Amino acid sequence: MERNIYLELTPPAQALKIWLDRIDEVCAAPGSEEVDLEQSAGRVASAAILAKRSSPAFHGAAMDGYAVFAPDTYGASTRRPLALAIGKQAWPVNTGQPLPKAANAVVMIEEINQEADAIILEKPVFPWQHVRKTGEDLVETEVILPPGALIGAQEIGALAAGGIMRPQVFKKAKVAILPTGSDLVKLGDANETDLAAGRQLPEFNSLVFSTMLKAAGAEPITLPIAPDDPEEIRRMVWTARDADLILINAGTSAGSHDFSAHVIAGLGELIAHGVSMMPGKPTVLGIASLGERKIPVAGIPGYPVSAWLAISEFVLPLLAHWQKRQPPRPEMMAAFPVKPLPSKPGMEEKLRVKLGIVDGKAWAVPLPRGAGTITSLSRADAILSIPSANEGLDAGKPGLAALLRPRNEIEGALLAIGSHDNTLDLLDSLLRRSHPRFRLTSAHVGSLGGLLALARGQAHLAGSHLLDPETGIYNEGAIRKHLGATPVALIRLVDREQGLIVARGNPLDIRSFENLGGSGIRFINRQKGSGTRVLLDWELKKRGIAPGAIAGYEDEEYTHMNVAQAVLSGRADAGLGVRAAANALGLGFEPVGFEQYDLVIPLAYLQDERVIALLEVIRSREFRDAVDTLGGYDTARTGEIVGTFQGSS
Amino acid sequence: MERNIYLELTPPAQALKIWLDRIDEVCAAPGSEEVDLEQSAGRVASAAILAKRSSPAFHGAAMDGYAVFAPDTYGASTRRPLALAIGKQAWPVNTGQPLPKAANAVVMIEEINQEADAIILEKPVFPWQHVRKTGEDLVETEVILPPGALIGAQEIGALAAGGIMRPQVFKKAKVAILPTGSDLVKLGDANETDLAAGRQLPEFNSLVFSTMLKAAGAEPITLPIAPDDPEEIRRMVWTARDADLILINAGTSAGSHDFSAHVIAGLGELIAHGVSMMPGKPTVLGIASLGERKIPVAGIPGYPVSAWLAISEFVLPLLAHWQKRQPPRPEMMAAFPVKPLPSKPGMEEKLRVKLGIVDGKAWAVPLPRGAGTITSLSRADAILSIPSANEGLDAGKPGLAALLRPRNEIEGALLAIGSHDNTLDLLDSLLRRSHPRFRLTSAHVGSLGGLLALARGQAHLAGSHLLDPETGIYNEGAIRKHLGATPVALIRLVDREQGLIVARGNPLDIRSFENLGGSGIRFINRQKGSGTRVLLDWELKKRGIAPGAIAGYEDEEYTHMNVAQAVLSGRADAGLGVRAAANALGLGFEPVGFEQYDLVIPLAYLQDERVIALLEVIRSREFRDAVDTLGGYDTARTGEIVGTFQGSS
Repeated sequence: MERNIYLELTPPAQALKIWLDRIDEVCAAPGSEEVDLEQSAGRVASAAILAKRSSPAFHGAAMDGYAVFAPDTYGASTRRPLALAIGKQAWPVNTGQPLPKAANAVVMIEEINQEADAIILEKPVFPWQHVRKTGEDLVETEVILPPGALIGAQEIGALAAGGIMRPQVFKKAKVAILPTGSDLVKLGDANETDLAAGRQLPEFNSLVFSTMLKAAGAEPITLPIAPDDPEEIRRMVWTARDADLILINAGTSAGSHDFSAHVIAGLGELIAHGVSMMPGKPTVLGIASLGERKIPVAGIPGYPVSAWLAISEFVLPLLAHWQKRQPPRPEMMAAFPVKPLPSKPGMEEKLRVKLGIVDGKAWAVPLPRGAGTITSLSRADAILSIPSANEGLDAGKPGLAALLRPRNEIEGALLAIGSHDNTLDLLDSLLRRSHPRFRLTSAHVGSLGGLLALARGQAHLAGSHLLDPETGIYNEGAIRKHLGATPVALIRLVDREQGLIVARGNPLDIRSFENLGGSGIRFINRQKGSGTRVLLDWELKKRGIAPGAIAGYEDEEYTHMNVAQAVLSGRADAGLGVRAAANALGLGFEPVGFEQYDLVIPLAYLQDERVIALLEVIRSREFRDAVDTLGGYDTARTGEIVGTFQGSS
Repeated sequence: MERNIYLELTPPAQALKIWLDRIDEVCAAPGSEEVDLEQSAGRVASAAILAKRSSPAFHGAAMDGYAVFAPDTYGASTRRPLALAIGKQAWPVNTGQPLPKAANAVVMIEEINQEADAIILEKPVFPWQHVRKTGEDLVETEVILPPGALIGAQEIGALAAGGIMRPQVFKKAKVAILPTGSDLVKLGDANETDLAAGRQLPEFNSLVFSTMLKAAGAEPITLPIAPDDPEEIRRMVWTARDADLILINAGTSAGSHDFSAHVIAGLGELIAHGVSMMPGKPTVLGIASLGERKIPVAGIPGYPVSAWLAISEFVLPLLAHWQKRQPPRPEMMAAFPVKPLPSKPGMEEKLRVKLGIVDGKAWAVPLPRGAGTITSLSRADAILSIPSANEGLDAGKPGLAALLRPRNEIEGALLAIGSHDNTLDLLDSLLRRSHPRFRLTSAHVGSLGGLLALARGQAHLAGSHLLDPETGIYNEGAIRKHLGATPVALIRLVDREQGLIVARGNPLDIRSFENLGGSGIRFINRQKGSGTRVLLDWELKKRGIAPGAIAGYEDEEYTHMNVAQAVLSGRADAGLGVRAAANALGLGFEPVGFEQYDLVIPLAYLQDERVIALLEVIRSREFRDAVDTLGGYDTARTGEIVGTFQGSS
């Protein structure tokens, strides 16, 4: 089969509107049904639901006291107290109890004097005082819920009060999910050997979609995986002809194995192939004619982030539309990017970001942009949209971030920008366990990048291990040079062992930096500005080794773990990194020496309750024990204040 | 048994803290368990979850094209194109496929010229270009989720990518709910006769609680209803001794049948009885010692709004605390009360409000304050808190409203303040069905109140039927008098029939206003400023009937339906109201005449897309047919613009 070409890219809002309008014209909506009130949470009223009975159903006491007939009490005063005979003119009632026929008011127990067979009043009682009148809450035939109302706890209470035991709700839309791809294997059936060789890909998009669809009130049905064969895909689509909506996953792009758009066009109408949104560009929208029925069908891209966005932007709005609702909009927050974020004009870009609120200003740290990086979603606090008219976002201008977590979780976060170390993850976990209101969000840009972020007021703290080659002292020089007028405390997190990470058993016998130059050994480097890169360059300089003599010197990774992974996968033979990373992946390690890894914290934040909690965790026995378990760390000085410093402004 | 007295009222935040601290000290938290990934949505990671495998598990193509070894391409240029033999130096790959061992880069199909057995390049390829490297998303042993992370769709995707098929999560807390009250019956068992007589109260709080608890990740178990007998309550509590938390519902106040605080004190520790929060004051917090176990126990007030608040403010935070999370905070909005809202200093008041955003300013319209009014919750858009330090909220100062619906639903609402008519509910339902983005929120304060709200810029429109006794013309005079400089359009909604609403069959033979004066017939009136009250006073004046001669003239209700309900329940013999209200409850009706019921809409809003949609619905066949079905309306002039008017500023 020939490669497809995209139809013109359609702006996402326009593609959605055309699709919904066409669906309204030719497709059947899922309809409505009655459900038990007990099962109605999360369902949506399909028509106005009217009260079948009034609530309260009777005039009842709203206070504990005595029921009386108000006119009997007129004239009572302090000077002329009035006695009402219990059982004849006054009847004891508790809150909620019905009033006797003859009564039309309640006098509170606190407001009378009680005698054996009478109560004494010193002031008159108004009619209907302290009475919950029939229908005060709901009158029979009144609207309890309008159409499109989402049923939750309080709505269930109101329906019960109005005598509705089986509310009429929209049926759950049946959504068929068809995973396609000859290399896909069911999640549970994957085996490690075939996965590592790339012969198998575990299929998990259908599980992600199902979770999203269920949360939106639909009923997902996952079909067996179809191979990359248009005939088979077509056949499987036909098996879903009783569904309300069909999602074909992957094969939506323009590659030679991408059949979805072609299949959809062949089954009916292709409404959009390609939308001007990134990730999510290769989304396909159409309508399939399957026998008597016309069924909306969407081709969902294969990369997990593209897929999540396609479901969010097209499928969830259709489900809401069928329920006569708007899709719920997440809470929005204006956030400043920590660095300029270029983007392609004409494309709406959906960046996944971490957020930190520093001195009242929200900062957005972009996560990897790749559409294949599912952790860019699971780690994100928000989706920051760059409108299609823009060429990106400046650091000086806020963008609009759609929150993926409640705002209070973001407000409780300390934002650390700087060097990466595995102990930061540990610190975050322990902080969350001991102080669930707080968390440590970290972004890895290297030590120097962290100091510059602190200087710009973009972070609460920075991890740093910058060696000053001239003095042999860590961090102090760089702080004085880069941190402007901000006074900071330098707090030791750990001393850690750096060394050459090599394959298990060190088959190439790499023992020192001298082995690297001109040897053909493939090195994997860290990015410029990282403390490890500074260390490498210093060690090379000391030894008179030219960087150009090292194969792979230009090949960079951003974290110790990614360096270790590069060695594990055979992409490189050696890299400089911490022992903990080598240990984590069972690799060989040739030590170079210990270095200081410190946290740089502006003095102003030392009184912040989050920082106080963080320091408490750093100084805990539990943290040190956990760090020691990782290997390659010395925690003797962990938590110590190394000093306070201030740069020149 | 003696009446209880409250212990000192404790501020809610303080009561919660003391309770949680004590629970941490003496009670066991629910613990953790492994669950299938498919079942993990909504669960919370109990410890950091680390990746078991790297993702991707192999170096794979990120584009469709050819895999090559980058150094083979160095030197290629437009002037010196380079040929790579297919199958030996270049291998076709599709996105996602693994790279051959010998390759370390991908060149896109668009960037080459293809010949039969070779590809031709005109520029060199960088190493690892267009390659998704092993571990790019996740490296084995990396943290996928920290403890306390809520698992949703994207988290499930990340766990699957990291090879986690059974994540470790917190166990669902088992929460026993014990409804108490001798007059309660199970919801399904209620019969209308006993309900109407007040011999039975349908028990639905447990269903409301269950819905809230399930949404918070707990497992509710509702016990059989216990009578108002401390021994029985105690016995039932003991049956729940394997629960993690026990909720005793009702009997928490200080009445003679309120045993909850006493029972809890007797079973262990009473930590708080009474909190300074309204509704919700009679909340009881304690810890019960049941055999070996110490179990947190809460006495939840009986009134549904108090109960909902007690669950929200005390129970949900405990569940979150056990999951090492903060309770999610709803989106907040600053909103101005439409009228001053007095409140008791020292008490934190939780007002249920409707919200409308008029010219960019959010206005809060309070719903009934009674703790028994469940519809004050189901109809509310938000909870507006008045802090305990305040004596209330001024109209000029905003309060903080915690949203119960997504913000975009509130932004789509037209706020109507003014006279009540049943057709407004109909209008809202039809508007929502045809334009799911929009809704009509109405607050019933009478015609005059509506005009004054419009004049203050607090509403988008007002329903009005104010007769000018001197001219016999509706609304125009009042608009000129009260609406200041705002030019408005007057749009006919309906002509409607007013009359005397009487018992079915009119047993007292009430035919006209003349029957009311001095007859002993109990009348139910409407509030001052309502159009119906103006009409009544005018009719009485014409006939020379003194208001004081009418029994019940001072007894007021706010809506036609509540007037009809008062007649239905026997509280009154007659009231003035519309035929539709009498019809709805099957009552008798003695017509007085037709009146105009108009919508007053500032000209500035006629271009608002919501108002345009509203007018479209008003003028639809569907709306008029539905109104005609109600009875007592004339829709001949429905939707007509009566005129545009402007008052004197």
